[in-house]
Amino acid sequence: MTLSSLKRKLIGEPFPTRADVDERLDKKRALAVFASDPISSNAYATEAIMSVLILMGSAALALTLPLGLGIAFLVLFVIFSYIQTILHYPDGGGAYTVAKDNLGTIPSLFAASALLLDYILTVSVSVSAGIRAITSAVPATFEYRLVLALLAIAILTWVNLRGVRESGTIFAVPTYAFVAGVLLVITMGLARYTGLLGAAPLTPEVHDVAAARPLTSFLTIWLILRAFAAGCTALTGIEAISNGVKAFKIPESINAAKTMVVMGVIAMSLFLGITFLSTQLNLLPTEEESILSQMTRSITGGGPVYYWVQFFTMMILILAANTGYQDFPRLSSYLARDGFMPRWMQNRGDRLVYNGGIIVLATLASLLVIAFDADEIAMLPLYALGVMLSFTISQYGMSRLMGKVGQLKPGGSAFTGVTTIHYEPGWHWKRLVNLIGSIVTGIVLIVLIVTKFVEGAWVIVIAIPLVVYLLHSIQQHYVGIRQALSTQDLTLDMLHEIADVAIVPMADIHRGTLRALRYARRISHDVRAVTIVTDDEQKERFMVRWQRFPEMTNDVNLQCIEYEYRDILTPLVDYIEKVSSQEFPDRLITVVIPEFVPESFTGHLLHNQTANILRVRLRGLKNVVVIDVPFHVPG
Amino acid sequence: MTLSSLKRKLIGEPFPTRADVDERLDKKRALAVFASDPISSNAYATEAIMSVLILMGSAALALTLPLGLGIAFLVLFVIFSYIQTILHYPDGGGAYTVAKDNLGTIPSLFAASALLLDYILTVSVSVSAGIRAITSAVPATFEYRLVLALLAIAILTWVNLRGVRESGTIFAVPTYAFVAGVLLVITMGLARYTGLLGAAPLTPEVHDVAAARPLTSFLTIWLILRAFAAGCTALTGIEAISNGVKAFKIPESINAAKTMVVMGVIAMSLFLGITFLSTQLNLLPTEEESILSQMTRSITGGGPVYYWVQFFTMMILILAANTGYQDFPRLSSYLARDGFMPRWMQNRGDRLVYNGGIIVLATLASLLVIAFDADEIAMLPLYALGVMLSFTISQYGMSRLMGKVGQLKPGGSAFTGVTTIHYEPGWHWKRLVNLIGSIVTGIVLIVLIVTKFVEGAWVIVIAIPLVVYLLHSIQQHYVGIRQALSTQDLTLDMLHEIADVAIVPMADIHRGTLRALRYARRISHDVRAVTIVTDDEQKERFMVRWQRFPEMTNDVNLQCIEYEYRDILTPLVDYIEKVSSQEFPDRLITVVIPEFVPESFTGHLLHNQTANILRVRLRGLKNVVVIDVPFHVPG
Repeated sequence: MTLSSLKRKLIGEPFPTRADVDERLDKKRALAVFASDPISSNAYATEAIMSVLILMGSAALALTLPLGLGIAFLVLFVIFSYIQTILHYPDGGGAYTVAKDNLGTIPSLFAASALLLDYILTVSVSVSAGIRAITSAVPATFEYRLVLALLAIAILTWVNLRGVRESGTIFAVPTYAFVAGVLLVITMGLARYTGLLGAAPLTPEVHDVAAARPLTSFLTIWLILRAFAAGCTALTGIEAISNGVKAFKIPESINAAKTMVVMGVIAMSLFLGITFLSTQLNLLPTEEESILSQMTRSITGGGPVYYWVQFFTMMILILAANTGYQDFPRLSSYLARDGFMPRWMQNRGDRLVYNGGIIVLATLASLLVIAFDADEIAMLPLYALGVMLSFTISQYGMSRLMGKVGQLKPGGSAFTGVTTIHYEPGWHWKRLVNLIGSIVTGIVLIVLIVTKFVEGAWVIVIAIPLVVYLLHSIQQHYVGIRQALSTQDLTLDMLHEIADVAIVPMADIHRGTLRALRYARRISHDVRAVTIVTDDEQKERFMVRWQRFPEMTNDVNLQCIEYEYRDILTPLVDYIEKVSSQEFPDRLITVVIPEFVPESFTGHLLHNQTANILRVRLRGLKNVVVIDVPFHVPG
Repeated sequence: MTLSSLKRKLIGEPFPTRADVDERLDKKRALAVFASDPISSNAYATEAIMSVLILMGSAALALTLPLGLGIAFLVLFVIFSYIQTILHYPDGGGAYTVAKDNLGTIPSLFAASALLLDYILTVSVSVSAGIRAITSAVPATFEYRLVLALLAIAILTWVNLRGVRESGTIFAVPTYAFVAGVLLVITMGLARYTGLLGAAPLTPEVHDVAAARPLTSFLTIWLILRAFAAGCTALTGIEAISNGVKAFKIPESINAAKTMVVMGVIAMSLFLGITFLSTQLNLLPTEEESILSQMTRSITGGGPVYYWVQFFTMMILILAANTGYQDFPRLSSYLARDGFMPRWMQNRGDRLVYNGGIIVLATLASLLVIAFDADEIAMLPLYALGVMLSFTISQYGMSRLMGKVGQLKPGGSAFTGVTTIHYEPGWHWKRLVNLIGSIVTGIVLIVLIVTKFVEGAWVIVIAIPLVVYLLHSIQQHYVGIRQALSTQDLTLDMLHEIADVAIVPMADIHRGTLRALRYARRISHDVRAVTIVTDDEQKERFMVRWQRFPEMTNDVNLQCIEYEYRDILTPLVDYIEKVSSQEFPDRLITVVIPEFVPESFTGHLLHNQTANILRVRLRGLKNVVVIDVPFHVPG
């Protein structure tokens, strides 16, 4: 009971199932929970573009803004696609459901595996990046970075186990504080740019084009593609809402779609604002200071606003991990529902969250953090590949769905197997937008794989098919069990018959074993007491005690097995196995185990675990029913 | 089966119980097994005396030889006492048995606790000291000292689990090599001393008595006492044979007594030889080099004999740990036999050794090594106290026994409760020798406690009574159980009646649950299927399936319990508890659990452990018999 009250303290009182609706997220909390990942990307997306472009010389940085606009355009396509997904699949499940419904099982498992791996990486990378911000500020903490990162994962796990709504409340402050801070800086920057504040307007430096390194046209195009792909980190986390529709208040899909739009507007405002001002300010990416920090410092001249932005950048980087906590358990529960993951991952715990998924995620992310010693730079090449693959699959799936919609007559509808579709005007261009989005994210995926392959992307290229194989094997396992248990065409005479035999292992005659013997005599006419003796003295002592209760033992068949080793379980199990396979093949036999149960934990340590070990060994025998007759003893 | 074949590889084929006699030790092996601890003491006993005497100035070192002689004299007393113990208590058990038979339970538990703690320390200290010899030779290994020490413990454990005889064979070489090496050095030294080898004879330096620091007479006596007590480390391990009589070939006690004499002669020859030559060579104890090393180097001038002695000193220091492995498990088995330790500690494993005790010892010694970071210097103040307490108790017990012997008429005999005693001539002086030995070791014990109290001896002063309390509590526990299980005055109508009711928890209708239902119907007329439903849809689905097998379910009472949390076990256990306590108080009720058993380990991970957790929770209920009806499923 102390364990259970500790759980109550940590997790809180359990919620009844009907409380589900109360536990859901309003749009404000939902934005905080789901948007921390895409919004936090702004802390580094612009910098990612510039870091590639600088390889062609500083003149090439002029391409930052056009590429940023291209990425923003791609974000529009992706958001458009996911809003349609949310509206067509209001039960959630995002890329996995879309692919299952439109492309088949294997593509859907690829989408799911890619996302699962990416969510684990989201947690590891975000937490490690957040901890790096702390260790940069206080270098003395550097040697504890691994412990700090694991502690951060533990806290996130704890908060998420307490429930979605509560975590939404806790995480709202840093998300909104970050957005507000960066928007303020961008506004100040734009005001200065247009001269509104009276300070000297910002003027772009004329780039010394001659300084650009001479490059072949192929290499130039490749580097521009790489810069574009690198900037696509701004897309990560956009899909989160599509998996989490069920976390929203009713009407779920409307609220989810609205939140998605707001999230897109905020994320793109920040991204474009930062990209525009960084290029106008002629900032250069350096090892020492991030572009966002340079920009903020340059516009605000340091001071409270600067520290506000820095602090909440760190906070939102850690919180981005929370997107993983929202989506990994939910996606796992969808997979479990369809038999691709252990069934218990679809069970919700006391606080209506998917405990199993949360704990599995925390464990895997912790192992990853340990393996990489909390070094997020080393993990980055593995990251974002999964999400890009899921975008490609999901958008392609939606383009197929739009094709089906287009084949309906106006006013007509059809059931796809998962969702009901109706004829929609404009299906032509909707299909086109999805297809273009799919092709562009597919190209980004290929560029990412090629450029990062050696640095670590190969791990993901190998891991995704392995996870697909694992999910598929789990389903095969469940199919096998369902067939074994199926009652289809079952007639009762196909059930095994129960043999009239009960075997009672006894080491001694005492109240506990006499109770078991009595139970066996009640359920069977052929009762066999089995005792293993290692010497004659022991045998004689047993026989004397056996004969003291003739009314219990007269009609019982006593088997004294002599054995010259000390391990009594082996001859016992051998005897039971022989009775089962030779005397009663294809029938159930019964073993009655007398077991004394000490009433305290320390009592357990003082006793042989013989009864427990015997039970485990008998589980291996197919047709043996085991009866535990307990006898409670003090201490 | 792979686990069991791995065990075969590591431990070897099991021995039948009758092989016990073959597994016993001949005198040569026994000496190696039991004498490594007392013989290894010579590596530091002389030095221990000198280190205290030097506090009074180097002139005081002249007292080393007289004190050494005093200690040798004490050793004679102790050996005399233990030889009598062996002859009077041929079943072994040493100080514990002597105290139990002559002084009562509590003194015997004090002797046992003191020895148990000392054996654990023997392992930790010896292994750490041996590893220090390695890390001193190869400083690069220093940072791995903890891992090396744990590895050494693992190897000792492994060898001991393989059997007494085998470990005797393995350990014989280093023990005899050490003895031979040191005896050779002593002989060379004595030859030079008497001028036989023609080299300049050794002449003692005239000590500058004036350089001795002025000391009060009380302090002088105290320091001399301390030096004497410190040198008594030479006594550690002498008692080992008395606990291990049963490890000897028949006639056990004669062989044990003979081995004890040989051990005493060897140990004292080395001790006196080293003490005599060290003082003749005017050696001074230093931090850098041990007295034994200085002596060997000075006599042999370095070279192969020197390295031989150094190498086997290291080996025998590690092997001294083996004394702990011999005696801790055996003493534990005596205590377990008398109910003071868990009963399973008296079981012998496949190779006829007390596996339980070996593993407990290895675990506790490893924890100690970890706690002290393999630093034996820090552990030393805890060491040797226990053994000294056991000497005191044991010799006092023997003096009492001699008193009883003296009260018999010549030719008469009596049974003391454990052993039969006969009138012995000379009981007067035997009693006196034991009494003097007891008083002297008692004084040494007090000196050791006082001088080392602050450095760590207080831990042992607290720990011994705690262990006594623990042993006593364990016995109380067993007494309680014996009373609860006792069949004395038992009439069969005192056994609980068995109620005609069987409760079958079912989550679904499938072959597994139908099998369980069939079993329940066979053994009871009042069968109640219980299902927990969380919503109406689930209930309806269950009812439809339930009605598909009317011939199985018509006469079964179906309990559909609605529960609005997801934890189905709580309402289930509540229902069972209610049936047990309200409907059938004081009768046994039966719960039939349908359980599917996946045939692979990975299969287990995919399933809810609901059946297992239910079984554990039902164990808490006194009158509930649990029937596991297994259903094997593939994968």
